[in-house]
Amino acid sequence: MKKVAIIMGSSSDLRVMEEAVNILKDLGVDCEVDIVSAHRTPEKMFEFAKHAHEKGVKVIIAGAGGAAHLPGMIASLTPLPVIGVPVKSSNSIDGWDSVLSILQMPAGVPVATVALDGARNAGILAAQILGTQDEKIRQRIIDFKSDLKEKVDLMSKDVKGKYGDG
Amino acid sequence: MKKVAIIMGSSSDLRVMEEAVNILKDLGVDCEVDIVSAHRTPEKMFEFAKHAHEKGVKVIIAGAGGAAHLPGMIASLTPLPVIGVPVKSSNSIDGWDSVLSILQMPAGVPVATVALDGARNAGILAAQILGTQDEKIRQRIIDFKSDLKEKVDLMSKDVKGKYGDG
Amino acid sequence: MKKVAIIMGSSSDLRVMEEAVNILKDLGVDCEVDIVSAHRTPEKMFEFAKHAHEKGVKVIIAGAGGAAHLPGMIASLTPLPVIGVPVKSSNSIDGWDSVLSILQMPAGVPVATVALDGARNAGILAAQILGTQDEKIRQRIIDFKSDLKEKVDLMSKDVKGKYGDG
Amino acid sequence: MKKVAIIMGSSSDLRVMEEAVNILKDLGVDCEVDIVSAHRTPEKMFEFAKHAHEKGVKVIIAGAGGAAHLPGMIASLTPLPVIGVPVKSSNSIDGWDSVLSILQMPAGVPVATVALDGARNAGILAAQILGTQDEKIRQRIIDFKSDLKEKVDLMSKDVKGKYGDG
Amino acid sequence: MKKVAIIMGSSSDLRVMEEAVNILKDLGVDCEVDIVSAHRTPEKMFEFAKHAHEKGVKVIIAGAGGAAHLPGMIASLTPLPVIGVPVKSSNSIDGWDSVLSILQMPAGVPVATVALDGARNAGILAAQILGTQDEKIRQRIIDFKSDLKEKVDLMSKDVKGKYGDG
Amino acid sequence: MKKVAIIMGSSSDLRVMEEAVNILKDLGVDCEVDIVSAHRTPEKMFEFAKHAHEKGVKVIIAGAGGAAHLPGMIASLTPLPVIGVPVKSSNSIDGWDSVLSILQMPAGVPVATVALDGARNAGILAAQILGTQDEKIRQRIIDFKSDLKEKVDLMSKDVKGKYGDG
Amino acid sequence: MKKVAIIMGSSSDLRVMEEAVNILKDLGVDCEVDIVSAHRTPEKMFEFAKHAHEKGVKVIIAGAGGAAHLPGMIASLTPLPVIGVPVKSSNSIDGWDSVLSILQMPAGVPVATVALDGARNAGILAAQILGTQDEKIRQRIIDFKSDLKEKVDLMSKDVKGKYGDG
Amino acid sequence: MKKVAIIMGSSSDLRVMEEAVNILKDLGVDCEVDIVSAHRTPEKMFEFAKHAHEKGVKVIIAGAGGAAHLPGMIASLTPLPVIGVPVKSSNSIDGWDSVLSILQMPAGVPVATVALDGARNAGILAAQILGTQDEKIRQRIIDFKSDLKEKVDLMSKDVKGKYGDG
Repeated sequence: MKKVAIIMGSSSDLRVMEEAVNILKDLGVDCEVDIVSAHRTPEKMFEFAKHAHEKGVKVIIAGAGGAAHLPGMIASLTPLPVIGVPVKSSNSIDGWDSVLSILQMPAGVPVATVALDGARNAGILAAQILGTQDEKIRQRIIDFKSDLKEKVDLMSKDVKGKYGDG
Repeated sequence: MKKVAIIMGSSSDLRVMEEAVNILKDLGVDCEVDIVSAHRTPEKMFEFAKHAHEKGVKVIIAGAGGAAHLPGMIASLTPLPVIGVPVKSSNSIDGWDSVLSILQMPAGVPVATVALDGARNAGILAAQILGTQDEKIRQRIIDFKSDLKEKVDLMSKDVKGKYGDG
Repeated sequence: MKKVAIIMGSSSDLRVMEEAVNILKDLGVDCEVDIVSAHRTPEKMFEFAKHAHEKGVKVIIAGAGGAAHLPGMIASLTPLPVIGVPVKSSNSIDGWDSVLSILQMPAGVPVATVALDGARNAGILAAQILGTQDEKIRQRIIDFKSDLKEKVDLMSKDVKGKYGDG
Repeated sequence: MKKVAIIMGSSSDLRVMEEAVNILKDLGVDCEVDIVSAHRTPEKMFEFAKHAHEKGVKVIIAGAGGAAHLPGMIASLTPLPVIGVPVKSSNSIDGWDSVLSILQMPAGVPVATVALDGARNAGILAAQILGTQDEKIRQRIIDFKSDLKEKVDLMSKDVKGKYGDG
Repeated sequence: MKKVAIIMGSSSDLRVMEEAVNILKDLGVDCEVDIVSAHRTPEKMFEFAKHAHEKGVKVIIAGAGGAAHLPGMIASLTPLPVIGVPVKSSNSIDGWDSVLSILQMPAGVPVATVALDGARNAGILAAQILGTQDEKIRQRIIDFKSDLKEKVDLMSKDVKGKYGDG
Repeated sequence: MKKVAIIMGSSSDLRVMEEAVNILKDLGVDCEVDIVSAHRTPEKMFEFAKHAHEKGVKVIIAGAGGAAHLPGMIASLTPLPVIGVPVKSSNSIDGWDSVLSILQMPAGVPVATVALDGARNAGILAAQILGTQDEKIRQRIIDFKSDLKEKVDLMSKDVKGKYGDG
Repeated sequence: MKKVAIIMGSSSDLRVMEEAVNILKDLGVDCEVDIVSAHRTPEKMFEFAKHAHEKGVKVIIAGAGGAAHLPGMIASLTPLPVIGVPVKSSNSIDGWDSVLSILQMPAGVPVATVALDGARNAGILAAQILGTQDEKIRQRIIDFKSDLKEKVDLMSKDVKGKYGDG
Repeated sequence: MKKVAIIMGSSSDLRVMEEAVNILKDLGVDCEVDIVSAHRTPEKMFEFAKHAHEKGVKVIIAGAGGAAHLPGMIASLTPLPVIGVPVKSSNSIDGWDSVLSILQMPAGVPVATVALDGARNAGILAAQILGTQDEKIRQRIIDFKSDLKEKVDLMSKDVKGKYGDG
């Protein structure tokens, strides 16, 4: 198995969750992807969560919408850090249900929650966690931040060109 | 086992959930009570939920607060109707997290949600469900509604006595 | 009359509510459908609610939007279990009004509330309630859950095919 | 009967609703007070609402909390103007349920909603409605507004005395 | 001047507010319409509000969006009943700002608030207020309610035709 | 008149608003304080707002709770910058009404809104505005920020003493 | 440098923020525009904020969306008044995140917050601040308010023409 | 330096944040604690965040309330994983401001957010992150989960003793 496992409750969440796959690829981190539903495949979820750490997985990213129980249930079954991505699904009340049912975990069972539809940040966070021990990955994070800065510098030039340089 | 099983995530929920026990007793319905935590005892939850219907349980009432996954996970594992009670626990954001993480279940896996801290109504609803086949229980529901009316009639007399009869 | 009665405040709610009709048909449960408005046909609502249980109805599903009083008023008038479907109507404030005016019933008069626009789950819940006494219906619920699992398994194969198997 | 009828779902609402009684007395408008519960005494509610206008009532004030159906159901049954007072009851989610289930009535059946726990304003509004035809009541409204102004003028003097006059 | 004055903060609110004009016409009540902005024409607002009752106006309907101060400011300046229509304008946060800044008036200065974009109900409420003294208008309200009922009866026939009669 | 005028709708707001007075005194800026109610003394509000800039006032701070119209109405009548303080009054819905009815002003009439009960920040902001032209006041702002830093440095020492220095 | 500096976290905010540029131009106030991101270019933000007041900037307008830290961080680093514009960006939860993370600054560090997407008002507020010392700018504000009034008067004529003059 | 650094905006946050210290001690992970304020000591925050990873820190836990910028700003300046704890401070609007200003970070700069006042979970999450490479810590996490289970089993016995064993 890969070091990062990305799971989600339905293939309709892929639209959001593939941003996690893409950024991890950019950061040189392999990941595996699967559909695991807390409510429709609870046994599969149990099996996955109880044994992931034995197969070499280091971080689990779980995305779900509505009453989103997948990230929290995974967290209850694994000693690994679990990153939760609240997905604004079609049946969501503006995303509040997804956010609160992932974020508000009881004491003892944390889920590292990122922004609504924030799968890209989930991928970066997974890389940062791996980067605490892997210098190459940490360096890629540092380079990635440098790229962010350069993109803003380009925007800055454009805007100054348009409105004058002060 | 009894026809109604009442479970909750922590004994701190008993303050709210015992109202379900009490009203069921008033309506002549036996129930059993246990602590089952989705996040701290997931295996016990699995065992309970997968076999409850084989042991004669007809309705499950599940109460939980915060990111409240217990009712929905039970519902994913049983063919029985599951009644969810959102509990306004100390770590809740005004109860919204409990309400939304119980109510907003995805298509396929319903939870019959009652009001925040509405354990008494959960008990009544369980009795109504049993009453669809049991004439005695239904009659007690009808009598219970009649009592509600009488209590309001008494309030009405008091208020008219205080403010005059119009 | 049929064992499940599905009512709603306006034919504009049919768009949502027909999912309850469809799933009940799939689960082999006959239902009847009518328009009953709490605010525009209160007498009809009264007549319907007071006599439904005498005509063989076992469960009532009521859908409404905005200040949604239909499910709660029906519940006040019948000893039957009432399932409420909050409908996100055009005049709703993001659905919050529908949800809260159905969910937050006072002690004594429960409404089994499902998710916003969750008519499909209302139908499944009605079948689960009937299934507490009818082995055939319960078996169909069990089969239905098995189908849900298979659909996720298919999604899983697709996703693994796309992203590699880990 | 009196020109203004004040009803509420429970005597626990009196704490809030008596402010309507008091201000109406101050404005020289007689009122009658009763407990009428939409969910526990629906028949009484029907009788009251259908005949109030035949007995000389001109305005109805209805207060209720939680899933507050009383004002809207009264409005569905009477041609009279109905003023709704959302009460922040103990089982309310910060009052939002009361506010939305009274305010968000569908087209065709208005409820004149005032602020959360705003019974005093409900009384003033009832007097303003009667004042559209009764010069004496209107004059009392004008005097009442003048008193409000004087109270602020007194506060102003106090504050200027404390902080200096600029 | 006419008995009902309808004002709003901008001609962009006409899209919503003309429903008040239309229903009042249907109910045989003349009204006048004007643009009066609390924030852009405060002097005009003052003049209008202070003298409306002297010119024969009986009820004022005021619509506004965002931080909607028009209904409340009008109410502070007139002894007449003021009906407020929260308009979901383009700059609104889902309508919450309009609703709360009209509804939550302090004790002493009520605004009769209707649902978000509920101009039709504002018109009906104005007619109900006039109907407290005018039998013809009250009768039209009764007839209007009867029409509402008939429309639902027609919907009912359609739905029963489609789904069978039970 | 003083350069900063602090007004509020009721003397009950003083509890919050006196923090603006105190910080302005600390920053060496004189201010005047008065009670001016949009809803109870609208004429006084008009007079105040229309002439404040002619009397030497440079900045107006206005605090109000609930449907808080005072800051916005003042802003509609003066060319001066107006700072609005949403006050969480007893009749407020958790402060949301105060915040939204001050913040969400329509295009053309800004109110510089600070945090709920943020009167201290309103005073600092007023000083910052005066400091754009007055070097002494700006220097006091710089010194004030330096004091803030020192207080945190002291906290830091305490905490490191308690938990060890790393 | 110009007296007003307008910065924003991304060029995608320009769609909203250019309204500030436009109204300042209309009011005869020069401004400079740049992209400065709290999260992607924190060093640039520090440099900008610490030295802006030394280069002649009098007021800073900062716009940002989501977890919007730019206005508050700028305010922590400058003695100048900072105007914050919450931008409803694509990743925002209905704008609430932008509003609350700009508005709710702790005591000591105010941000003058305007409405969601209220960049036009930010520009006007900046001009009002400059107008506290510059008579020409203040006069333009007075003229601008007069124009607002005339536009409403034109709307008023149109509406009266359409609906009759009362 | 220690492997986990815990910082917070004010010593008033210690009441919440010391739960992170305590659980880390229980899990055998040393940590350092300091007060670092984004708004009052921005330079110190910069220094801390830019160099923490060079001094051996592996994970940063940052707690803050209201417009809580500390976790996000730290995240913008470090390649390390940052865990954010929304603190319900006295000036917070029910905690929503803290939650949203920490959670809703823009793409590129994640903060691993835990529940409101969820410092205990922040500590556990930090240990889980370290446990991805440190078998001893992972084992302690597994033991800790086992303890959680046992505590629930004890509760279960108590409750069954009280209500009977089914």
